[in-house]
Amino acid sequence: MARYFENSSDALVSDALEGFALVHDDLITFDPQHGFLLARHTAPSRRVALVSGGGAGHEPMHAGYVGRGMLDAACPGRVFASPHNRQVYEGSRAAARPEGVLHIVKNYTGDRINFGIAAERLARCDIPCARVLISDDLASDADGIASGRRGTGGTVLIEKLLGAAADDGLGLAELQELGERLSARCRTLAVASAAHTAPTLGEPAFHLGADEIEYGVGIHGERASATARQGPLDALIDRMSEELIAALDPEPGSTLLTLVNGLGAVTPLELYAIHREFSRVLGRHGLSPARTLVGDYVTALDMRGFSLTLLVADPSDLPFYDAPVHTAALRW
Amino acid sequence: MARYFENSSDALVSDALEGFALVHDDLITFDPQHGFLLARHTAPSRRVALVSGGGAGHEPMHAGYVGRGMLDAACPGRVFASPHNRQVYEGSRAAARPEGVLHIVKNYTGDRINFGIAAERLARCDIPCARVLISDDLASDADGIASGRRGTGGTVLIEKLLGAAADDGLGLAELQELGERLSARCRTLAVASAAHTAPTLGEPAFHLGADEIEYGVGIHGERASATARQGPLDALIDRMSEELIAALDPEPGSTLLTLVNGLGAVTPLELYAIHREFSRVLGRHGLSPARTLVGDYVTALDMRGFSLTLLVADPSDLPFYDAPVHTAALRW
Repeated sequence: MARYFENSSDALVSDALEGFALVHDDLITFDPQHGFLLARHTAPSRRVALVSGGGAGHEPMHAGYVGRGMLDAACPGRVFASPHNRQVYEGSRAAARPEGVLHIVKNYTGDRINFGIAAERLARCDIPCARVLISDDLASDADGIASGRRGTGGTVLIEKLLGAAADDGLGLAELQELGERLSARCRTLAVASAAHTAPTLGEPAFHLGADEIEYGVGIHGERASATARQGPLDALIDRMSEELIAALDPEPGSTLLTLVNGLGAVTPLELYAIHREFSRVLGRHGLSPARTLVGDYVTALDMRGFSLTLLVADPSDLPFYDAPVHTAALRW
Repeated sequence: MARYFENSSDALVSDALEGFALVHDDLITFDPQHGFLLARHTAPSRRVALVSGGGAGHEPMHAGYVGRGMLDAACPGRVFASPHNRQVYEGSRAAARPEGVLHIVKNYTGDRINFGIAAERLARCDIPCARVLISDDLASDADGIASGRRGTGGTVLIEKLLGAAADDGLGLAELQELGERLSARCRTLAVASAAHTAPTLGEPAFHLGADEIEYGVGIHGERASATARQGPLDALIDRMSEELIAALDPEPGSTLLTLVNGLGAVTPLELYAIHREFSRVLGRHGLSPARTLVGDYVTALDMRGFSLTLLVADPSDLPFYDAPVHTAALRW
């Protein structure tokens, strides 16, 4: 099996961050000592800074979303591991605006704890801090899962919308409220036909048969609760789309944002063909996406899989989506 | 082994093009009957249309580069197969501007033949047509290879520069001359640690050992002339970069454009770490990139590999690079 192209599995993330800082020097600064990336330019109208972060291995998230119209700072951890609370604290202090900091946190235990400790430390420095928890993963939406739904693909859409809202001058409580509404109306479902390569082993994290997929896979290489038949694409997207629609139950004509997201090794050909099927199923319910992203936005190293995200927005959210953004990975 | 997510290997490309046209309806129109994509908006100042194309499986190339500031039309073939000359002819006719059409052709026999027949047909309709042949692949630069160097990663940089030059109002001969100068001063070298999945088989196109790479691999799954040890990243990039520098022999302080390009399944972490090493070797020669792209720009389905491109430009080319571009895959 193929290993990663790297000097060592220990060095990969820090080498990559140095390379990222070289390439995107116009957009961000990287503080290697404290482990965060800071946007060079954010709107003067922004009263609250947006700070996110999480384990590495999900690139372009979050480093690729730091810049004009989106995040003020991002704190990357090691591969699939939460950033240290000190990184989040230092990044938040460096980014803080007059009305404080909003933490955008994907729902994983480590991230919740580390962002939580950082928030307590910020409070002691009189820096107001609130949190939006992203928990869009439909596959972990079950009574037996005490930690709740995981945060995944929807994070990109919500960070984009919150970025524009922050530029619009919304206050801390207003941004938190908007983020919570968006997160509550967002669901994602992911499948994989091959695992990512485990960095320290250079071997696939798990093995699947020729026509098998993990149905409801996470973005950290954890297996799903169910292994299913891959089958033809139309039947697979039928099932996934129907489950997303059933979970959110949008009225016909709702304002929908969709994301067809590659988890690493899936080709653009497949992603665009997947979008075509997703649109077809939505159409059957009198639904169509108002805005759509197709590409690798939240990955799981080199996993061969993809996720579908459905976000039921308000029409008033669309100007936030359409507002200009200029980051390494998202720009319009 | 994992199969592609598709309805059938026959349907994948056409399904993907339909999906692409749904997502990027603001940028392009897709003519399924004649098999080409056409930019909705190009600059009125453009006297010559830029038309490219080639086999599918290299996405985002070329469909992702149709739009403002870049290509007027693209003609996609089947996976790794040249478009039919009729597609090129129809796409060129639809895109043609007052001073004709420039074909940007990667150096492969099928593409040369089909673009050539299309050019003859255009001449019979009194549509002037010239060609820029892209042949940047250093690994196929050998006396024994009669077909000459293959065209690969450099195509993206040259299509970007020519797009801006066309917007600037350059005529057909001037654009051809610029393209030929750029192609002559551009070299690319690619390696892979795992083959792409062959679409009809659902199996890797070739097999490599745990620490083996194909050194000088092409973008159609053809094996390289040499299999080498992968080893640590710094030594690999040392070797690749030194060979590119030796081939072009740029003066210290030259105006360089670089591209670190993923071939499919390589992660952004790796690509940015690769850029860091590439910059280090360039620095040893008194060189540094004036402009840099890092990402998946010219792929070979889900191949686990990457390419390095070095283009020795004139300082006067930089405004063409920096000029705005708005396509599916490249925008600033």
